[in-house]
Amino acid sequence: MAGYPKPITDLVRNLCRLPGVGAKSAMRMALFLLDSPDEEVKALGLSIAHLKERITFCQLCHNFTDEQVCSICRDQGRDTHVLCVVEEPGDLMAIEETGSYKGLYHVLHGVIAPLDGVGPDQLKIDSLVRRAHSGEIKEIIIATNPTVEGEATANYLRERLSAAPVAVSRIASGLPVGGDVKFADSMTLKRALESRSRM
Amino acid sequence: MAGYPKPITDLVRNLCRLPGVGAKSAMRMALFLLDSPDEEVKALGLSIAHLKERITFCQLCHNFTDEQVCSICRDQGRDTHVLCVVEEPGDLMAIEETGSYKGLYHVLHGVIAPLDGVGPDQLKIDSLVRRAHSGEIKEIIIATNPTVEGEATANYLRERLSAAPVAVSRIASGLPVGGDVKFADSMTLKRALESRSRM
Repeated sequence: MAGYPKPITDLVRNLCRLPGVGAKSAMRMALFLLDSPDEEVKALGLSIAHLKERITFCQLCHNFTDEQVCSICRDQGRDTHVLCVVEEPGDLMAIEETGSYKGLYHVLHGVIAPLDGVGPDQLKIDSLVRRAHSGEIKEIIIATNPTVEGEATANYLRERLSAAPVAVSRIASGLPVGGDVKFADSMTLKRALESRSRM
Repeated sequence: MAGYPKPITDLVRNLCRLPGVGAKSAMRMALFLLDSPDEEVKALGLSIAHLKERITFCQLCHNFTDEQVCSICRDQGRDTHVLCVVEEPGDLMAIEETGSYKGLYHVLHGVIAPLDGVGPDQLKIDSLVRRAHSGEIKEIIIATNPTVEGEATANYLRERLSAAPVAVSRIASGLPVGGDVKFADSMTLKRALESRSRM
């Protein structure tokens, strides 16, 4: 990129850090921005620049919020007897997109991963246990990923929650809807067979 | 995206305007940024926010620059006798990437497109004609796109430059290197046959 003005090379280098953006698409984005109305470019830039100072974590469920308590926890129309435990705010967002869950959430902000040096103390587990003992919650659905770390975390949570007056459940794992038995990996297929249900 | 804090929905909406970015990848980028170090996110945001005020056009060739004259026009090592005429700064950048051209450029900032209401007066043609008459330039290579508008613009420029003491040439058009005759469209194949060269 020799010969381009520094503001453009700086921008392209910064854009390349984004997931799924390589040098070519970063340059395409830069040229697009140079050709866009000033106020739109400024709006995008400022919405990125001020993102981290505007966003914090919900005091109850640790989801993203721009207030003390997130809009889901504040929502009077939700079922406050069910809690869905997820690894990351992105998982919560994906479940919200389904429109089929009306309970509350609890975001762990990670999974137990001893190899990465992440133990239970680094996760939002103590506050989950406190919520489980509050008497308000009747069921806790553990929706960590069906990976080695996600399963280990789910098992750890089941132990930690065993003394609480709540039912603990785990989201189902098996073939994705629209999937194909012959293309499924053997771990998924094994799980789908084990978790078969009466029809 | 109901339920997400406004700074995130604003950001996702703004990111969706970028070329090649849909709702899913915009959300993925937003989550990535929320998980990135504050100073990196700020750097990206500010490099976008201040882009348009930092970038202007070169007084000589109309390329992007952050000074009065761009780094290519200022470069003492370039061949000042050859001028390559392109439609957009992005075309100039693509030619620079080849590393095979050492002359100067002239950016038209568009093509003649009567249906879109773009006539010669809206393009940087007068300044090109002035440069052609300066006595410094010996050859002008017209590198507008091989499209209907690009060809029409090339023909118009050849006429306008006919009185200038310069040789006017046109970049070659034909099969792309690594291309396949049986997959080439017939217009390209026709052009490749017409423009055949002795071997």
